[in-house]
Amino acid sequence: MNNLIVISGPSGSGKSTLIRRLLQKHREIVFSVSHTTRPRREREIDGKDYYFVTGEQFRQMIDNNEFVEWAQVYGNYYGTGYREIETKGNSGYNQFLALDIDVQGAGNIRKKYPEALFIFVVPPSLEELQNRLLKREKKEDENTRKRLEIARQELKEYEIYDYIVVNKDLDQAFFILNSIYTAYRNTTARREYFIKRLLTGGKE
Amino acid sequence: MNNLIVISGPSGSGKSTLIRRLLQKHREIVFSVSHTTRPRREREIDGKDYYFVTGEQFRQMIDNNEFVEWAQVYGNYYGTGYREIETKGNSGYNQFLALDIDVQGAGNIRKKYPEALFIFVVPPSLEELQNRLLKREKKEDENTRKRLEIARQELKEYEIYDYIVVNKDLDQAFFILNSIYTAYRNTTARREYFIKRLLTGGKE
Repeated sequence: MNNLIVISGPSGSGKSTLIRRLLQKHREIVFSVSHTTRPRREREIDGKDYYFVTGEQFRQMIDNNEFVEWAQVYGNYYGTGYREIETKGNSGYNQFLALDIDVQGAGNIRKKYPEALFIFVVPPSLEELQNRLLKREKKEDENTRKRLEIARQELKEYEIYDYIVVNKDLDQAFFILNSIYTAYRNTTARREYFIKRLLTGGKE
Repeated sequence: MNNLIVISGPSGSGKSTLIRRLLQKHREIVFSVSHTTRPRREREIDGKDYYFVTGEQFRQMIDNNEFVEWAQVYGNYYGTGYREIETKGNSGYNQFLALDIDVQGAGNIRKKYPEALFIFVVPPSLEELQNRLLKREKKEDENTRKRLEIARQELKEYEIYDYIVVNKDLDQAFFILNSIYTAYRNTTARREYFIKRLLTGGKE
């Protein structure tokens, strides 16, 4: 499938902000909704932010092999359903599906969909990442240290990805992300059909 | 080598204009100068437009395996020297080398430098290509027909390339070319060094 965009990045990398901007700019990109067992927060909408399911339902989906990837994080389950990808990913040539997914999940998606686009958003330094996490969490606590250690572990898996976006400045990082997306739209795999049509006398 | 940019396109695709704009915008991209046996035209500068050599010198270079690729076109020889690529391509991490090269040459470069970036500029239709060639040559003649047939042959080799830029509108085509270049600057292969430094406490 050559219209999947997988974006990962440690907590504090700015990944979520970048994805939001990408979706705002390109209406042809839809967002992949994950399943989770964690409780719905007040502003979240079922089917838009997550598909909220019970532990029982989640386990049933695992047993039925309905997940491309799933993981347990802080006691809650998160997973990406095949159906989500196959339905939204196949809804048209000019329709793209963006997945906000952790490093482990990305590795699994890569195995199933090697032609997807894999982008890793990273901070300019671990020091800067720490500053951002501290600002967010107000004080250094166990949580920040844990997130920093997880970030360090995640960064080691960079080889899963096709592109690395260093988010030092948000506008610059978005320019790079948007360029990567534009390039992806014009890969030979995606343009093959056009070339073949051109050779038989067709037009764009 | 992950800082080579190979750009091909049939005569009339607008490739040369696009390359010129790319070089104007990015001073870190230098242009690869080919060797040729064809006579120097008045406005051309030796060592800038081409290295102008005699047939004897060219054959000597072939015998010495000094060319990554070479070809005979309308009785003249054209070739890309290893020294040109190795010298200009290795002049720095943030230095790029652009090659304006035909399909056959691109295929040879791909074998020697698989990690280079390969971009194919194509017209929106063969009809439009014909119009452009006619406008350039003023009247339909043998030359136009020959160029159209060559274009058709070249287009069949699209699989050599990573990206296809359909040049329907010049500004739009340049936007895509510039995006592809920006993406290439941020591939994991090019960012590996940064990630490793980041993991040991460095900064961008």
